Amino acid sequence: MIETDILIIGAGPTGLFAVFEAGLLRMKCHLIDALPQPGGQCSELYPKKPIYDIPGSPEILAGDLTKNLLKQSEQFQPGFTLGERADTIEKLEDGSFIVRTNKGTEHKAKVIAIAGGLGSFEPRKPPLEGIEKYEDKGVNYFIKNPEIYRDKKVVIAGGGDSALDWSIYLTDIAKEVKLIHRRNEFRGALDSVEKLRELKNEGKIEIITPAEVDALHGAEKLEGITISSKGEEREIVTDHFIPLFGLSPKLGPIANWGLEIENNAIKVNTFDYQTNVPGIYAIGDVNTYPGKLKLILCGFHEATLMCQSAFQHINPGKRNVLKYTTVSGIDGFDGSRKEAEKAVVEAI
Amino acid sequence: MIETDILIIGAGPTGLFAVFEAGLLRMKCHLIDALPQPGGQCSELYPKKPIYDIPGSPEILAGDLTKNLLKQSEQFQPGFTLGERADTIEKLEDGSFIVRTNKGTEHKAKVIAIAGGLGSFEPRKPPLEGIEKYEDKGVNYFIKNPEIYRDKKVVIAGGGDSALDWSIYLTDIAKEVKLIHRRNEFRGALDSVEKLRELKNEGKIEIITPAEVDALHGAEKLEGITISSKGEEREIVTDHFIPLFGLSPKLGPIANWGLEIENNAIKVNTFDYQTNVPGIYAIGDVNTYPGKLKLILCGFHEATLMCQSAFQHINPGKRNVLKYTTVSGIDGFDGSRKEAEKAVVEAI
Repeated sequence: MIETDILIIGAGPTGLFAVFEAGLLRMKCHLIDALPQPGGQCSELYPKKPIYDIPGSPEILAGDLTKNLLKQSEQFQPGFTLGERADTIEKLEDGSFIVRTNKGTEHKAKVIAIAGGLGSFEPRKPPLEGIEKYEDKGVNYFIKNPEIYRDKKVVIAGGGDSALDWSIYLTDIAKEVKLIHRRNEFRGALDSVEKLRELKNEGKIEIITPAEVDALHGAEKLEGITISSKGEEREIVTDHFIPLFGLSPKLGPIANWGLEIENNAIKVNTFDYQTNVPGIYAIGDVNTYPGKLKLILCGFHEATLMCQSAFQHINPGKRNVLKYTTVSGIDGFDGSRKEAEKAVVEAI
Repeated sequence: MIETDILIIGAGPTGLFAVFEAGLLRMKCHLIDALPQPGGQCSELYPKKPIYDIPGSPEILAGDLTKNLLKQSEQFQPGFTLGERADTIEKLEDGSFIVRTNKGTEHKAKVIAIAGGLGSFEPRKPPLEGIEKYEDKGVNYFIKNPEIYRDKKVVIAGGGDSALDWSIYLTDIAKEVKLIHRRNEFRGALDSVEKLRELKNEGKIEIITPAEVDALHGAEKLEGITISSKGEEREIVTDHFIPLFGLSPKLGPIANWGLEIENNAIKVNTFDYQTNVPGIYAIGDVNTYPGKLKLILCGFHEATLMCQSAFQHINPGKRNVLKYTTVSGIDGFDGSRKEAEKAVVEAI
């Protein structure tokens, strides 16, 4: 059982910044995310795209924003349960909560902060008959551990950055890589496209366009696929089929936690972003209130106010005076200290 | 008469970021600030101190934060009225406002955003009889234009960064510089102290500690001061006396604008941070509402929500769809465009 002060569901920018603000108030955080790495959309969907509206950062790549937020919170030593989805919640008599993931990991905390973004990202699945039967038996929608593809035959489908980047990556690992896409055009970073062209010319990858997958075959696990390209059918023997068609967010099991929901978002007040269940907060894109804007910078503000209220929830009656980091510095849970240089000179 | 869409009172971080958010919605901004440069406290009080709680910037000097915010908003071409204090406001029949400064500059806008921080910074004045008589006639509390001290005799008083830095700066310009401080100790950046020691050894500055100014002399303008040091009185002939004892914020004339005030701050709602007067908003440290935290990052959020509401105030009934800068890019008022690189390749 993992125990912490604030259990944050969602490790996107808002959740990561909550770790920092909680740390200033000496509260420890643990984060759960369905994705295999922290950063949420910023890491999974558009790590190489610039964001222009983070205040004080005129232009920052989404991936770099994630790195900066991890750095900003690291001295408060957050814990992570990654690649698992928060599934069920239970309130104990002492007011604390138990959250279980889809893989059975249990977490206990006095405060829950749902920073779930637009929901947990579910892969867009191709409408192929019986595809569920092959999931994790040859069909994967995410690439979590590239090593499982070593010396295997792999077919990737898709025309965006993920499909291009993983195709390139796997040519070094897999025995054989094929990339198929239903259109001729690809949408991705120019250098990825250039690299893929090189690999194709070197015979390290086969690119089949326009083409669609029609059927999956195999008894116990995936053994092959049928594709159609330019009116002709073709059988491909393969160990893995990896459709990378993007992710679509789903509120998922959180929708059944007894929280008030409006327009697929969790209703909160504007005082401390608490839900209708005391001790459960919702911050960032997952919440809604009058005037709500789904912007990262608003999530930062919400995380900050939420932490003040969580402090009172965890330490009822204890006084908390707002301190400024510039004035007071920061003491990490790892014994580190950051502070402004103060020079006092006896005489000149 | 200066005309604009949103007149922002206060050019600190919150006011500067409001320029950016207003720009995204095609609204122009003009800023008034009592200080001679933008950045508010960050530029005037602690430009060399690190801030640790700007989200996505694990450690940033306050002066650099100002530079970044100016850069972030520059393509929306804000106007500035600096070194003047907003004094009076008048509501016209068409709903727009006229704001006049203490120097008589007039501004007209449909929306007023008060981003006044803790108030306009008033210098801490030494309690010397008749000092008002010499203000701008030898006594200055700010250094706006160093050239007025060229070839003059100058006495600076104070023991902090401002006193140290300006003493160093003026040795190159003034005929004679004396620095007096009531204590032996100085509080400032180590390299400033080192530089000052050098200048003292070269005979370019006289440092008198511990010492206090007892009286000012002069008929039409300042001609000399009396100081006491170690029990002895001394007369100093000087053209200028510049006490740099820090600034203390005062809400000032804004307190008389008919806005609801609570605890020296302006009351706003949490929906769009509007005051009790429609069309006048208050954002950042100057406002108060349930749960308010006086943090820069909260001001950024408030500025953003305020701009959405200001858009409706200026364009009643017009629909405004929130666009993401990563998706839509940014079009500056100067014809510039920033956008994420999008590569579509016909085929690989």
